[in-house]
Amino acid sequence: MQLGVIGLGRMGQIVVDRTLEAGHDVVAFDLDAEAVATAADAGAEPADSIEDLTDRLGEDKRIWLMVPAGEAVDATLEELEPHLDGDDVVVDGGNSYFEDSVRRAESCPAAYLDCGTSGGPAGAELGFSLMVGGPEWAYAELEPVFDAVATGPDGHERMGPAGSGHYVKMIHNGVEYALMQAYGEGFELLHEGRYDLDLESVASVWNNGAVIRSWLLELCEEAFREEGSDLGTVADRVEGGSTGTWTVQEALEQEVPLPLIYTALAERFGSRADDGRFSRRLASRLRYGFGRHEVPRRE
Amino acid sequence: MQLGVIGLGRMGQIVVDRTLEAGHDVVAFDLDAEAVATAADAGAEPADSIEDLTDRLGEDKRIWLMVPAGEAVDATLEELEPHLDGDDVVVDGGNSYFEDSVRRAESCPAAYLDCGTSGGPAGAELGFSLMVGGPEWAYAELEPVFDAVATGPDGHERMGPAGSGHYVKMIHNGVEYALMQAYGEGFELLHEGRYDLDLESVASVWNNGAVIRSWLLELCEEAFREEGSDLGTVADRVEGGSTGTWTVQEALEQEVPLPLIYTALAERFGSRADDGRFSRRLASRLRYGFGRHEVPRRE
Amino acid sequence: MQLGVIGLGRMGQIVVDRTLEAGHDVVAFDLDAEAVATAADAGAEPADSIEDLTDRLGEDKRIWLMVPAGEAVDATLEELEPHLDGDDVVVDGGNSYFEDSVRRAESCPAAYLDCGTSGGPAGAELGFSLMVGGPEWAYAELEPVFDAVATGPDGHERMGPAGSGHYVKMIHNGVEYALMQAYGEGFELLHEGRYDLDLESVASVWNNGAVIRSWLLELCEEAFREEGSDLGTVADRVEGGSTGTWTVQEALEQEVPLPLIYTALAERFGSRADDGRFSRRLASRLRYGFGRHEVPRRE
Amino acid sequence: MQLGVIGLGRMGQIVVDRTLEAGHDVVAFDLDAEAVATAADAGAEPADSIEDLTDRLGEDKRIWLMVPAGEAVDATLEELEPHLDGDDVVVDGGNSYFEDSVRRAESCPAAYLDCGTSGGPAGAELGFSLMVGGPEWAYAELEPVFDAVATGPDGHERMGPAGSGHYVKMIHNGVEYALMQAYGEGFELLHEGRYDLDLESVASVWNNGAVIRSWLLELCEEAFREEGSDLGTVADRVEGGSTGTWTVQEALEQEVPLPLIYTALAERFGSRADDGRFSRRLASRLRYGFGRHEVPRRE
Repeated sequence: MQLGVIGLGRMGQIVVDRTLEAGHDVVAFDLDAEAVATAADAGAEPADSIEDLTDRLGEDKRIWLMVPAGEAVDATLEELEPHLDGDDVVVDGGNSYFEDSVRRAESCPAAYLDCGTSGGPAGAELGFSLMVGGPEWAYAELEPVFDAVATGPDGHERMGPAGSGHYVKMIHNGVEYALMQAYGEGFELLHEGRYDLDLESVASVWNNGAVIRSWLLELCEEAFREEGSDLGTVADRVEGGSTGTWTVQEALEQEVPLPLIYTALAERFGSRADDGRFSRRLASRLRYGFGRHEVPRRE
Repeated sequence: MQLGVIGLGRMGQIVVDRTLEAGHDVVAFDLDAEAVATAADAGAEPADSIEDLTDRLGEDKRIWLMVPAGEAVDATLEELEPHLDGDDVVVDGGNSYFEDSVRRAESCPAAYLDCGTSGGPAGAELGFSLMVGGPEWAYAELEPVFDAVATGPDGHERMGPAGSGHYVKMIHNGVEYALMQAYGEGFELLHEGRYDLDLESVASVWNNGAVIRSWLLELCEEAFREEGSDLGTVADRVEGGSTGTWTVQEALEQEVPLPLIYTALAERFGSRADDGRFSRRLASRLRYGFGRHEVPRRE
Repeated sequence: MQLGVIGLGRMGQIVVDRTLEAGHDVVAFDLDAEAVATAADAGAEPADSIEDLTDRLGEDKRIWLMVPAGEAVDATLEELEPHLDGDDVVVDGGNSYFEDSVRRAESCPAAYLDCGTSGGPAGAELGFSLMVGGPEWAYAELEPVFDAVATGPDGHERMGPAGSGHYVKMIHNGVEYALMQAYGEGFELLHEGRYDLDLESVASVWNNGAVIRSWLLELCEEAFREEGSDLGTVADRVEGGSTGTWTVQEALEQEVPLPLIYTALAERFGSRADDGRFSRRLASRLRYGFGRHEVPRRE
Repeated sequence: MQLGVIGLGRMGQIVVDRTLEAGHDVVAFDLDAEAVATAADAGAEPADSIEDLTDRLGEDKRIWLMVPAGEAVDATLEELEPHLDGDDVVVDGGNSYFEDSVRRAESCPAAYLDCGTSGGPAGAELGFSLMVGGPEWAYAELEPVFDAVATGPDGHERMGPAGSGHYVKMIHNGVEYALMQAYGEGFELLHEGRYDLDLESVASVWNNGAVIRSWLLELCEEAFREEGSDLGTVADRVEGGSTGTWTVQEALEQEVPLPLIYTALAERFGSRADDGRFSRRLASRLRYGFGRHEVPRRE
């Protein structure tokens, strides 16, 4: 089948490559002409505008968006929509907020699939995990492409109606924050604790048969191998946080307690408090207030 | 080589089986004669007492203890020690507290290896992850057995001196608590949230390529397959907690913050508060105190 | 001076009473005629509609709204606004969301003061703590009323521009959740711990000179006196949560970590999970998955 | 009555002063002769050794220890005990671990009262809150002194048998950690949030009638008055932690969840992680592992 791909960053290029490798045809567009050229080198048909891309796709267009979440999706859809009708299918494979996806599904003239995509750059070889929301017929239509982009037929699934794909992906990421921090706590205690341990070796033996083995633990092993057991120059500063924040916001609305996921998110915020945590500064000063304990001061 | 195995519960039997399968000889003892008979059926030489077991082992005895952590280990060692000397090696493959292992290593006439064992019953087929503490020469001597009991040569590693094996296993379990609760939070939000989702299907698609894929997530998938997406009759009561408690205690001594691991442990405690949480009962009553909000009452 | 009061529930009646006691005139209205009669008995001039209330106020109207946060405020303002101009002042003394107050301040023809009110029914005797946002001149105009309704001149303060009063009150309540849960934890440990303690007596001795003495601790003392040291029939169910939820939402936007306040809020959610916590049910089932530990079941 | 006081630091001197003011006689000793001289200036009879102090006390000695918790208490008791019999009473007014107090009560020839003392230097004027454990008759004997040292008759209470006084004080301090951090979180959000607020003014208006008013909040107000609304040079480093650690350890044994108290303690640990938090450094590196996100590096 024929797939249009809009957005040829690292992830979009993987979609192009895996779709081509599976024997499908790809028409590719990006605002960056160099990215289009890369896709063309890989075997895609280059397009020089969104309109051009839609012209090159026949009837029953199938289009995969892999552009940054937020305004870029809306801007792309605005250009696309005049060329779409109800027999067409648009997939948003980015990290969009699920309520945006629900809104877009309602207004888009084509069938709209929101597709949470997990696996990162490693997905180039292994394929991704795809969580898809939207109409069943549209999901069925796209199955050959999903088979190619995912790890295979087991690597994608329709979760439910519009928004459900990005909803499940959002919560996936919330869990991811907590898992990372949980491994981090364990390795912190190993690092600060009683024994002088080789953390790569610990991660390695755990990855071979222990209950907590996982892909993230393989990445821990890789991190210690590449940075050393003390993580070298890696700073105590964790960026990112939007999908974790969405997860906590949704849990507040649903009145579901997420203490671990929240704490993991809060650790990120705390790591970015460049002037120190005000709460702790006040606690330190209060110790003087009631006990005349000396107050540590900044220089 | 020849290995004595004392303690033939579920885990001990796996040690016997995997050692035999690798072509080694096993002498097996347990207080339960039926367990000894099972081991004998599998090809082990049965012993009818600890003394008998030591008699059947030649010079340079290698003995694997797989008895419940705590007093059973000390009782077994007390019986064993008259028959041991410095050329012998004892492995404690159970979930002993690391400081007990340090103490036992000091007093045992044989070389003593503390061996954290992870993988559970599934290790019968896959082999275990073995974290070993103790003298290098003793670890080297036991390598053929470790190769057999573990997933293979990568599934065991010497962590460091006495106690370090059980230390690393203790922290492994602390991390395990947090991982379980983190997945639990994610699935709770999926279950309570906006979409009617098939959680086995969510777990399955995540296990195929998603960042958070892991063995524990495979067990989640299995749980939803066997219990249903609402977990059927599974009660809100999480037993266990000793290794997690040890992990938090050690972190208190090392002054290392473990908010996620602690919270996961505290959730277990909370799940077992059969009369409700006193803290929340007081908070509810205080809402009446300052705001005249109605107090929910027990019937 | 003359004050119109709209909304004569428990809190509104206190505003009426304290304003009258300070020698001011009050015109009072509520949808409930009985509440108006009560206010009239106390010395207020009764009004039988919002329009009637505005007619009875002279030039330069000063009106205090004490109606439930949310739609009731907007509905009241809609009726009021045709009768207001820029020399008038409206005070919203309820628990409104600060962004609603900013919006209302922008659209209201009168000067608009958002006034966070803390102290609960006990404020009838002691007076309230009032956190006020809005124009300085309007705050100055209302000072005599604020003096009367608050504990005195120190019991009210202008925090800043529109919305800041309700903003500070929102965060006050977030802190309140955490304080209640913190005392709850301490008393839970005392209740479950090694000694058979009289918790009223503990609270009493703490309230006499201990570092943690507070009004909330006085309410704890009262609770133990009235319910007994085991809190009698008080259920493990904590209602409420809107202002705490707003606090956490705001902190997510500001990327400020609030682990204690969040946890206190999450405990409320958890106390209302009538079918048990799904996260813990999954964790319990996973213990079977990797360790064949028996799964507690619901009957 | 006549009281011997051993240990004349800041807190011991307050015990001396308040006891003298109430019209009792005091014999005072400290290893530091200058401290003894200060007590003598205040009206106490100076002693130049523990033996001398016991000689100066008549039959039925009543002795208050105000020495640092730990070895100093044991060392003092060792010197004291040859001079004590069963009609004597020793009070330990320091921050001893409750299990040490149980042990000391068992071995001390005199009746032994463990007395948790809260209130800090401010107690000089106001008196302390005293939580007392030990024999009823001994508590009754000391009541005149407790009346003097405490805020009055309501400021002291017998909690129960040996150890219970220090047990209740230990948990008091655990709660104190959480309260401090809870206020800290609220003020952090106010400081980082949408409005430019005068935090002294916020604390002041809260202290006048708001639900969360307390002595700790008065200390917050004082802190902002003295340091400024941004806390000036106060560093993000919270010292101390022994009583909080004991509280959490006891809760682990009792299987009581203390998420807020634990988190407050963990924040102290985190504030002292001079090389950054290893857990967060690993999380940051993992974001590169699965997403090729740039890793912030230390310079």
